[in-house]
Amino acid sequence: MTALADVVRPTTFVESQKLRDELGLDITIASEAFQHTGSFKFRAAYNVVSSVPNDELLTASSGNFGQALAYASKLLGKKCTVVMPETSAQVKIDAVRLYGANVDLIDIKKISRNDRVAQLAAEMPDAYYASPYDDKFVIEGNATLGDEILDRNFDVVIAPIGGGGLISGVITSIRRKGSKAQAIGAEPLLGNDAARSLRAGELVANESEPMTIADGARTVSLGKLNWPIIKDGATDIIEVTDDNIGSATRLYFGMANLKCEPTGALALGAILEDTSRFRDKKICVIVSGGNVDADVYRKILG
Amino acid sequence: MTALADVVRPTTFVESQKLRDELGLDITIASEAFQHTGSFKFRAAYNVVSSVPNDELLTASSGNFGQALAYASKLLGKKCTVVMPETSAQVKIDAVRLYGANVDLIDIKKISRNDRVAQLAAEMPDAYYASPYDDKFVIEGNATLGDEILDRNFDVVIAPIGGGGLISGVITSIRRKGSKAQAIGAEPLLGNDAARSLRAGELVANESEPMTIADGARTVSLGKLNWPIIKDGATDIIEVTDDNIGSATRLYFGMANLKCEPTGALALGAILEDTSRFRDKKICVIVSGGNVDADVYRKILG
Repeated sequence: MTALADVVRPTTFVESQKLRDELGLDITIASEAFQHTGSFKFRAAYNVVSSVPNDELLTASSGNFGQALAYASKLLGKKCTVVMPETSAQVKIDAVRLYGANVDLIDIKKISRNDRVAQLAAEMPDAYYASPYDDKFVIEGNATLGDEILDRNFDVVIAPIGGGGLISGVITSIRRKGSKAQAIGAEPLLGNDAARSLRAGELVANESEPMTIADGARTVSLGKLNWPIIKDGATDIIEVTDDNIGSATRLYFGMANLKCEPTGALALGAILEDTSRFRDKKICVIVSGGNVDADVYRKILG
Repeated sequence: MTALADVVRPTTFVESQKLRDELGLDITIASEAFQHTGSFKFRAAYNVVSSVPNDELLTASSGNFGQALAYASKLLGKKCTVVMPETSAQVKIDAVRLYGANVDLIDIKKISRNDRVAQLAAEMPDAYYASPYDDKFVIEGNATLGDEILDRNFDVVIAPIGGGGLISGVITSIRRKGSKAQAIGAEPLLGNDAARSLRAGELVANESEPMTIADGARTVSLGKLNWPIIKDGATDIIEVTDDNIGSATRLYFGMANLKCEPTGALALGAILEDTSRFRDKKICVIVSGGNVDADVYRKILG
């Protein structure tokens, strides 16, 4: 079995002088848009599939984790089932099928994803259920991105936050390396459960799936494994307006020739919320992925 | 003075499984979109500015070479003047000025670029005139990209052709490395002077600047230095329709998360002209640059 380190593509560091001049900041981009399946989720997924003894995997994801788990399962010769709402974009359903996984389409008005996963788990007792963010193998996989970034000695690493798996990986890496870098989360203001949790000192959930443009961060709450890691390890969580997510997506396009998905632009969006606090710091912004429909992207550029 | 090898950013190799599956080809992208100033032209420009003894540079370019020469001159503390038509996109004029160069705007109905360059050269006897493609330092600079690519042992390297500076660099690199790789040019059908030259066995020019969507390849003819290199060293030059340039740009977006300018998509466009001839070959397609206006890009995606 090929180890994660031998399969994963190194992250792409982009240093754009134009972007640096525009913001007046020492900023470096770590982009996972060229990772297998187009997002950092492959690190998590491959680590799950290669670490568990099960020959079958099960998850619920309409986004990047579904594709990543499907492809990792294909590479490792395991079966994979991905639960998706039947209203998911056809291109995303097709992508999961392209990687050879079984797609289980549900009508979310009739059954919740969690309930359907519970049904399937009962039908497939030998399958491993992989949460897209709340799983120790997911955090460990994501920590490999942290390792690549921390080798470059940044003062601040800013990561998008949805379920919290990515920043938990970065914090895990900071700890094991004894790095002094600060880990800062970037969360959509429209779904600011993580920021509210950090303020309250306890895990707070959104009432429903937040309808932010950053569709990869439409999570109701942080993962239970991630929350204590983030509570102790995150310096701050910055709430980002959808306007600034759009502006950051356009800045990446115009100043760095980088196509990224809205969720991937969260970290730069967090900087746009208050550039002054990042002066004189060596900053890394993580672009978590690049998978965005042409129509959505055209609207953001327009 | 910092050497080119220490300043240039390594090219970004992107291996997209989706793109490979879509085309059924063993294809690797070498993208210069993250190079300084967003295109391979920086290699050429920096090599010119650092090689000549002159403290002043002069060129005529409304595109990537102008920006590249301006930035290279700034890095090396030299003066730079770029002749541009006054009808150039404001964003391009601003980019050259941002890098500290003097922009000389002309009304091309009243004076040609060449005549204006001759005027300025007379006024600035100490300036070195740098052709964007027809200059030995330009070819040498571009050869550094060839070197990076050939280290990976491809059967075929496909490069966009405008004035021929890039493919001349690739051929130069193939020769000095004793590589067996084939160099193939990808030229807009609407401005197919290089393909016609190769067929005729003599240098043929377009009657006027061809109005292809690949604005970086709107050259009237190959450079005089490049022609003999291409005549002897290019296996073929494939003529690419503007439709296939657009399709290739969309494929990079959808299958590889890559933002590229239309000229940058020429090599993949050449493959779309006839995929079958590339079966069972290990192919590298060069993406020469990523600088494209949002409006143009939106139109291509739509």
